[in-house]
Amino acid sequence: MDLSPSPLARTFPELPSIDGVTLRVARAGYKDWDRADLTFAELAEGTAVAGVFTKSACASSEVEMGRVQVGQGSARALIVNAGNSNAFTGHRGREAVEQIVAQVAKALGCRDEQVFVSSTGVIGVPLPRDKAREGVAAVLQADPCGWETAARAIGTTDTFTKGAGASAMIGATRVELAGFIKGSGMIAPDMATMLGYIFTDAAIAPALLQEMLAKANAASFSCITVDGDTSTSDTVLAFATAKAGHATISSWDDPGADAFYAALLQVCRDLAQLVVRDGEGAQKFIEIAVTGAASDKSARHVGLAIANSPLVKTAIAGGDANWGRVVMAVGKAGEPADRDRLSIGFGGTWAARDGQPLADYDERPVTEHLAGEEIRIDVDLGMGDGRATVWTCDLTHGYIAINADYRS
Amino acid sequence: MDLSPSPLARTFPELPSIDGVTLRVARAGYKDWDRADLTFAELAEGTAVAGVFTKSACASSEVEMGRVQVGQGSARALIVNAGNSNAFTGHRGREAVEQIVAQVAKALGCRDEQVFVSSTGVIGVPLPRDKAREGVAAVLQADPCGWETAARAIGTTDTFTKGAGASAMIGATRVELAGFIKGSGMIAPDMATMLGYIFTDAAIAPALLQEMLAKANAASFSCITVDGDTSTSDTVLAFATAKAGHATISSWDDPGADAFYAALLQVCRDLAQLVVRDGEGAQKFIEIAVTGAASDKSARHVGLAIANSPLVKTAIAGGDANWGRVVMAVGKAGEPADRDRLSIGFGGTWAARDGQPLADYDERPVTEHLAGEEIRIDVDLGMGDGRATVWTCDLTHGYIAINADYRS
Repeated sequence: MDLSPSPLARTFPELPSIDGVTLRVARAGYKDWDRADLTFAELAEGTAVAGVFTKSACASSEVEMGRVQVGQGSARALIVNAGNSNAFTGHRGREAVEQIVAQVAKALGCRDEQVFVSSTGVIGVPLPRDKAREGVAAVLQADPCGWETAARAIGTTDTFTKGAGASAMIGATRVELAGFIKGSGMIAPDMATMLGYIFTDAAIAPALLQEMLAKANAASFSCITVDGDTSTSDTVLAFATAKAGHATISSWDDPGADAFYAALLQVCRDLAQLVVRDGEGAQKFIEIAVTGAASDKSARHVGLAIANSPLVKTAIAGGDANWGRVVMAVGKAGEPADRDRLSIGFGGTWAARDGQPLADYDERPVTEHLAGEEIRIDVDLGMGDGRATVWTCDLTHGYIAINADYRS
Repeated sequence: MDLSPSPLARTFPELPSIDGVTLRVARAGYKDWDRADLTFAELAEGTAVAGVFTKSACASSEVEMGRVQVGQGSARALIVNAGNSNAFTGHRGREAVEQIVAQVAKALGCRDEQVFVSSTGVIGVPLPRDKAREGVAAVLQADPCGWETAARAIGTTDTFTKGAGASAMIGATRVELAGFIKGSGMIAPDMATMLGYIFTDAAIAPALLQEMLAKANAASFSCITVDGDTSTSDTVLAFATAKAGHATISSWDDPGADAFYAALLQVCRDLAQLVVRDGEGAQKFIEIAVTGAASDKSARHVGLAIANSPLVKTAIAGGDANWGRVVMAVGKAGEPADRDRLSIGFGGTWAARDGQPLADYDERPVTEHLAGEEIRIDVDLGMGDGRATVWTCDLTHGYIAINADYRS
């Protein structure tokens, strides 16, 4: 299926090189296509790693191994296979990953657990070991490439390549962050969604990097949804090469820790929103801000209940200011709510306050707002101080077309 | 919008009269349409009532009142308004319902709490009191009508009228059950979904009737989903007029209790499945049987996670035996599961056993099965004895078309 770029696509940004990170791509031929589908990031000795993974009970071997590997905190290589997720393939899938790990570890002279592998694509077909072996051999010899080339090589149904960067000052030292991500369907909230990789030359102790990534994940990747479905392979990894030369940050109280976290959160949010912008069939980008909830967590649940509602998403697709469907979604969220304190607005205009339609509600500015590509929904529950913002896209004929005949 | 009947539609069945139940319809004109939209069921003195309602935190006034009313156990009248759900309308909505209740109670000479009201349609617009008053006056004078006429008058986006019946022997006495229902979208599982009404001439004590209805609900209306969305108005009421003449059944141990429950369950299941058959845009009826779960409840959750997955539903729409998406949905259900014990089949053919694709898997019978209108998915978790069956429909372009511009 030939997909035109999402109307919400963003141009791939200029991203700086990260000292200690070398990217290469090759063609393993996991599918019958004429493109690079195997990506290799070589990481300098001393690189710290952190990761968040799908909570699926049926996770892939890559995820099972990655969950264990991050515990030892160091990384030398990342391999990403595109076109075959290798999930639900039993021991044959596991063996394929172990083969890749051994091949890369031998070439780099590092330990097996320092080699991280991700795979994305169709579930249930074991990764072909011959193609993987030849592909890894080729990628180890390939010329270095840039961020956009690597970002493109990890994509599957993505309609545009997705990257984001940021920088932070740690004392007098400027550190850089660069990341790329793939994902457009099977995106759900209660986990680290899709495949995303963030690289920095900052020196961050692994335990702190893990804390920071988990915290940033809760306010970024865990706040987006396309279709409420949860992949068996979702992974976000952060690699810190420590090449910038500043003293290692190992505590939230260390100088520069806050600045680095702010930059990391920004990259995570930017990458997460790019995935929503490539949501399958998406025509509109929707930001849902929930305030007045019993807690921040409760606010996020309410926001995701709205963001996952097919009826809300189709109403937005149709440019219909059907706030009643938002009421429905709030009601079903299973969180503390009171119909008679609930307020709902679109694009800065309240449609209902305190459980009733506004007497002087003028639908025209709302209709104008909904005709655009960037939609804002405000929900105030009137219960407490909890707040959260989540992001999703509309549900259109394009989603059906893409998913009713994806596998082929 | 003019909707053609669902391809999965069923003809309205022949249903017997129920002694003690008189049906009438009238046109209140809640919307600008040329059809009856106000339904009245007059119930004989001594009619017992039971009800299950939406769990929405933003339920309508009708639901709030109904939840209280069923507690006293007797009913004399049911009024159903179609075209306006009266939900999220604050005190004005409440006053409209109280007006209807007072008007009907006065006409029948009964207590207010014996008059049950439901409303269905757009959220957020108070039920117009003038139209309600004139409509109720008209329906009180209208000629009695049959089941199908009443069933049609409660419909909104329904594409066909839905009814079901059954009978049971209580000692030497044959009792009859007849019911009708409306609903095709905003159907979700963790509650009594949509508007459904079941009438019987059996004599069942209100407390037992409530127990029976709640139990039957758990295995029928709570096992269906169209889009995972939960209405603010969903209601199922059962009325037992006691006109059949047998001794009142007040305990599960009384003679005939099991037979009556079996008939009640059958009617609930038939009505629930009819709603799925009218799922917005539905082209295929999907039965999902989950076995080997840690518990029956766990099995139902897993089944509903599959049934609510847009990726599974679109794959079925496309006739694609993409069992990997079923694995994904099992994984995200949040229930005990083990990838390496999981088996998945379509139409009686296993595609994967114990966590791996079958070596000799022949996709042809599965593809043939998926080309039909009645789809069966089997999932064995290999964990325990829990089992459940749930029902849903596929997700098609029709769903988008209906919901992107419903309100008008």
